[in-house]
Amino acid sequence: MVREDFWVEVFKIQGSVTPRVAGRLFGFSLFGAAVYLFFEVLQFHNGLATAHYEYIGVVLALLLVLRTNAGYDRWYEARKIWGGIVNQSRNLAQIGLIYGPRDRTWRENYARWVAAFSPVCCHSLRNEQNFEEISELSEVIGTGETRRLSEANHMPMYVVRRIATMLRDAVAAGEMDRFFFLQAEAERARLIDHIGGCERILRTPLAQAFSIKIRRFLFLYLLFLPIAIVDAAGVATPLVVFLVAYPLLALDQIGVELENPFSQARLNHLPLDQISATIRSNVLASIDEIPAMIPYADSP
Amino acid sequence: MVREDFWVEVFKIQGSVTPRVAGRLFGFSLFGAAVYLFFEVLQFHNGLATAHYEYIGVVLALLLVLRTNAGYDRWYEARKIWGGIVNQSRNLAQIGLIYGPRDRTWRENYARWVAAFSPVCCHSLRNEQNFEEISELSEVIGTGETRRLSEANHMPMYVVRRIATMLRDAVAAGEMDRFFFLQAEAERARLIDHIGGCERILRTPLAQAFSIKIRRFLFLYLLFLPIAIVDAAGVATPLVVFLVAYPLLALDQIGVELENPFSQARLNHLPLDQISATIRSNVLASIDEIPAMIPYADSP
Amino acid sequence: MVREDFWVEVFKIQGSVTPRVAGRLFGFSLFGAAVYLFFEVLQFHNGLATAHYEYIGVVLALLLVLRTNAGYDRWYEARKIWGGIVNQSRNLAQIGLIYGPRDRTWRENYARWVAAFSPVCCHSLRNEQNFEEISELSEVIGTGETRRLSEANHMPMYVVRRIATMLRDAVAAGEMDRFFFLQAEAERARLIDHIGGCERILRTPLAQAFSIKIRRFLFLYLLFLPIAIVDAAGVATPLVVFLVAYPLLALDQIGVELENPFSQARLNHLPLDQISATIRSNVLASIDEIPAMIPYADSP
Amino acid sequence: MVREDFWVEVFKIQGSVTPRVAGRLFGFSLFGAAVYLFFEVLQFHNGLATAHYEYIGVVLALLLVLRTNAGYDRWYEARKIWGGIVNQSRNLAQIGLIYGPRDRTWRENYARWVAAFSPVCCHSLRNEQNFEEISELSEVIGTGETRRLSEANHMPMYVVRRIATMLRDAVAAGEMDRFFFLQAEAERARLIDHIGGCERILRTPLAQAFSIKIRRFLFLYLLFLPIAIVDAAGVATPLVVFLVAYPLLALDQIGVELENPFSQARLNHLPLDQISATIRSNVLASIDEIPAMIPYADSP
Amino acid sequence: MVREDFWVEVFKIQGSVTPRVAGRLFGFSLFGAAVYLFFEVLQFHNGLATAHYEYIGVVLALLLVLRTNAGYDRWYEARKIWGGIVNQSRNLAQIGLIYGPRDRTWRENYARWVAAFSPVCCHSLRNEQNFEEISELSEVIGTGETRRLSEANHMPMYVVRRIATMLRDAVAAGEMDRFFFLQAEAERARLIDHIGGCERILRTPLAQAFSIKIRRFLFLYLLFLPIAIVDAAGVATPLVVFLVAYPLLALDQIGVELENPFSQARLNHLPLDQISATIRSNVLASIDEIPAMIPYADSP
Repeated sequence: MVREDFWVEVFKIQGSVTPRVAGRLFGFSLFGAAVYLFFEVLQFHNGLATAHYEYIGVVLALLLVLRTNAGYDRWYEARKIWGGIVNQSRNLAQIGLIYGPRDRTWRENYARWVAAFSPVCCHSLRNEQNFEEISELSEVIGTGETRRLSEANHMPMYVVRRIATMLRDAVAAGEMDRFFFLQAEAERARLIDHIGGCERILRTPLAQAFSIKIRRFLFLYLLFLPIAIVDAAGVATPLVVFLVAYPLLALDQIGVELENPFSQARLNHLPLDQISATIRSNVLASIDEIPAMIPYADSP
Repeated sequence: MVREDFWVEVFKIQGSVTPRVAGRLFGFSLFGAAVYLFFEVLQFHNGLATAHYEYIGVVLALLLVLRTNAGYDRWYEARKIWGGIVNQSRNLAQIGLIYGPRDRTWRENYARWVAAFSPVCCHSLRNEQNFEEISELSEVIGTGETRRLSEANHMPMYVVRRIATMLRDAVAAGEMDRFFFLQAEAERARLIDHIGGCERILRTPLAQAFSIKIRRFLFLYLLFLPIAIVDAAGVATPLVVFLVAYPLLALDQIGVELENPFSQARLNHLPLDQISATIRSNVLASIDEIPAMIPYADSP
Repeated sequence: MVREDFWVEVFKIQGSVTPRVAGRLFGFSLFGAAVYLFFEVLQFHNGLATAHYEYIGVVLALLLVLRTNAGYDRWYEARKIWGGIVNQSRNLAQIGLIYGPRDRTWRENYARWVAAFSPVCCHSLRNEQNFEEISELSEVIGTGETRRLSEANHMPMYVVRRIATMLRDAVAAGEMDRFFFLQAEAERARLIDHIGGCERILRTPLAQAFSIKIRRFLFLYLLFLPIAIVDAAGVATPLVVFLVAYPLLALDQIGVELENPFSQARLNHLPLDQISATIRSNVLASIDEIPAMIPYADSP
Repeated sequence: MVREDFWVEVFKIQGSVTPRVAGRLFGFSLFGAAVYLFFEVLQFHNGLATAHYEYIGVVLALLLVLRTNAGYDRWYEARKIWGGIVNQSRNLAQIGLIYGPRDRTWRENYARWVAAFSPVCCHSLRNEQNFEEISELSEVIGTGETRRLSEANHMPMYVVRRIATMLRDAVAAGEMDRFFFLQAEAERARLIDHIGGCERILRTPLAQAFSIKIRRFLFLYLLFLPIAIVDAAGVATPLVVFLVAYPLLALDQIGVELENPFSQARLNHLPLDQISATIRSNVLASIDEIPAMIPYADSP
Repeated sequence: MVREDFWVEVFKIQGSVTPRVAGRLFGFSLFGAAVYLFFEVLQFHNGLATAHYEYIGVVLALLLVLRTNAGYDRWYEARKIWGGIVNQSRNLAQIGLIYGPRDRTWRENYARWVAAFSPVCCHSLRNEQNFEEISELSEVIGTGETRRLSEANHMPMYVVRRIATMLRDAVAAGEMDRFFFLQAEAERARLIDHIGGCERILRTPLAQAFSIKIRRFLFLYLLFLPIAIVDAAGVATPLVVFLVAYPLLALDQIGVELENPFSQARLNHLPLDQISATIRSNVLASIDEIPAMIPYADSP
């Protein structure tokens, strides 16, 4: 993974934003060539080639870096929240199955609802709420509940409510100690915080004035760039424009790609399906592993 | 959303700070032209065109970026706090409706007060406290309570108190388990933290010495800029001044716009009305959805 | 608040650090003039005018920005802690008055001690502990207690102890539910964390080696600056020195101003008096507003 | 540790990334020499030597620094999580041994399972799950349990479950107060959070589009670098290329090395074995130290 | 503290890292002089004087700033943790003395053990565990206990265990309410987190590959610096080398100094002795101040 990686990543196309900025990049380079020809023919000289033009570029680069960084922070925050969904789902399953009622039906139902939380969040964040779109949940919670779920005002809340209702019933029936319940409840409340966090990231892009401004500066900068360098760069003008425009346009595009970490249309979307599958496997495995540790009356 | 966005954002006017800095920008450019004419006529040369002048520009740019970043952090913190208001409102509603008394009147009243919290915060942060300004709350909590609310020393605290009183009564009447109450209370306390956090952001602008200083540097820098570049830039002086001044003035203005994320006069104010409407819809929908899960005596 | 602000802030004197650095600034500019005259008379040329000198300036600027940023973070952290004092005071008052004993004397005493916490912190952070300095507290907690307070080993701890003692008595007398007490106690413990946080900021300035080093670099840099630029800048040497030294010296001074956010001798000290007054008004208003909601036996 | 360190670190080979980038570095330098010979022979001049090329380098350096920083943050976060595993293991051992049942068998078993958690995490993060790979655990929890552990769906969860089961039994048997249990349970839940945090870091490398892009820019930059400098640098071209490429390639490699802080193939992997050994020693020592404080019935 | 400070700090020796880098600084300057003489004699010119050399310097400066910042963050984190030790010690003392048993012996013993925690941490972090090294603790906890403490596997844990045992006994004897105990226990657990945090900082220096790399770049950079500037700087070469090397070497050294905030051999070590003394005074004063508030049976 040491040397090979370097050359592999240098030439990798898949997962790269290059195709998404190729058009713009080509356009600005072409414009650079046109500027060169124009100045060559007219033998015209201009005063733009001052160091101050480069200074504007530094400001622009700082801004792009700032924005990419803000985008990366959002992406990482989303990843952390999903890490929290993994943790809380596991913890909730453990608490319910170890400290909860010994009745097998309750245990299985409970584990299934906990396992359903992360795929439901995933659907909800991708705006899929029709029964067809979420029908693979039928395996976990049954067709009837899946249909009812698809009609809920807020799907993840519906699942959390199911879990809360089961806990309440267990406590009311005297089969779960109140102190054990306290632990489960704290974890359950954090699940609501997590889904709220995802929705916040989904619905709040970067401050718009910020994003517009950067793109406008970028445009103005690249527009005047060939004029500023044509005297010094001569025939190399389009190449220099290309070399300057490539990282700037790509950085800008990476900022956009990182903005919505949930959408599958984005290059760096988080592997939500895979995370959900891991949770499901972990949680459902607990149904059988835990009774093997504790002598339950109804164990097979 | 890939290529189109780029060109759309480049030319977008709405949501841009350009109109707000246009005057200053025009002024400095004009001054640049005047400097050029003056030096042209007098055939005067000066020693300002040293690289050190550009260096001052770098310091200035670092400062502006720092300030914009600090502004963005405040804006994002405000967004996070409102995300917390969403989470805690939902959680509080869940806990009250699932673990609380089964009496329909209590449940409905409780949900209404929880739903009222976020619009009340919104009014409070915008300094609207007259009955007329908050009268649309009558739909949620009734006209009488809305009027009483408008006379409270601190409106969001009044709402939180109402919620606390209802919880206390439920516990006193033996209809809510103390362990369940503990959960509700923890969420309620966090609501007070959230409104306190919003007020802190609202009332503490950036350290003033910091903000004044940056604007003064910016002014001095742009004042001497044409003199520093006129020898090299010649007739392009106003254009260079424009290209340099535009990002700097815009960055400065964006910093100002991000400072108060609650005021509707700001370009990037948070969509508090919309967030409040979402909470209200979620919470009020719970009144009917939850009894459908739990067999309540008084369910319709 | 859009355009006017810009020009107002540019020329504002009050709240600016300019007067505090004027002497140094003038000194370095004068030295720049002297260097110019000296080199002019001697027709001497030197090799310092290399780009590397500017590079040192960039390192210096990065350091100053880093330090200002660290100072700003401390300032903001202090502000957040005081935001926490607001939140916890409010919360503590709510919990005591809603969930605590119904006895009016207890309620009033309790609210007064909670209201006393923030002004006591404020006095403590400003090192005022004589009875004369804190005598305005007599209105809140009475002259006798104010005098006893002034003799305590640690004033804010004394207040927190009073609050704890009242809660303990309420629980012991059976007038406050243990579950309700748990909530109050958690908030009370956070008050101790807050005052500890303030003391930490107050007593730990920036790492000293860091601060000394920056000032020494700044001095050396400004000392050699005129020698480095005199060849290129000629008669403009003092002006360039002024333009370069102004932001650097001001940034350095701002770093110092931000270091102690509690001292009234600092330009950007936090408005602790005003925050304390808000808390006091909020908390004392609760004494009358809450019984209006809950039918207390002793309500007027 | 003052002066010696400096020269020692300058020439240290072990723990350095230099050997890992030597090939690439040599290649680019050689290419620089080839470019020099080519241009020397052809007496060709080009327009690339503009300041704008250096500006691209600044953007690239900012990106590399950003990435290294992001990598360092991940590394430090991983270290913090393992610090948490130390804290929670110690705390859990204390609580169980001081507040738990007085039965020596229970105490010893309990301490052994707590001591087993960190080595199990370590194996799990390094993807070692065969009995042979984890057999050194037999000393702590016995051969039978080690084998069963190696068959679990998720090894760290298995250990946490064992601990939870023991706590539950102690409470059920009336040998552990429910309030004491609450403390133990909170610490146990945090252990699940910690292992989840490690897995998140392990499975989420830096956003890929980000990493590919930087390597591509780096390649393009170093490719055109000799062409841009050959006119000015002449025969020193390969040396300049070497001096520029070394920090850039090394920074890039350091970013890669920091990405996975758990793999022993990485230069800066965390000393997980050593940390685990410390925990084990601390926890197992408690078995004998605590009864010496508390008069247990079964103490030796 | 306004103007004087500036000049005082500029010339301060104590607390400065200058003496620690003086040797290296002198060496590099001397080497610069040698290079100048060599090139002067040989009338040799070289191609290193390109702007790209300065660019390497920028990358190096960014790295040094990054490292200093990381070091400062560690230092500040250590300071925050000790702030936490102050808070939790105070809080623990309060809770035990106000809510705990009324027996004077218990109260005094308890306060003494709490007061012993911070000096014990301090000794432990400085690797002092012999009885002679910690004998000043005898005043607080007696000679016998001090000796036993010096034989413990982990001294701070021993103290925490003592505290836990006393709390457990108080609860078992029915003299401390379980709800009150919950509060004490939460604070006690945080003490273990704090000492774990300090040990983490102590035992994890910056990622080594990172630190070696920076020093190697620094060395290479300063080695080639005089060759790169000798053409332009001439006789001023050693001065320029000095001015460039001073901030870079000092920054590097500051990074090292900040790495271990606990060792007294470091310039910026935290004043742990002083902090411990404050805690001790605060806690021991509570023994007498609290009974003055609460009518204890055994009060003097």
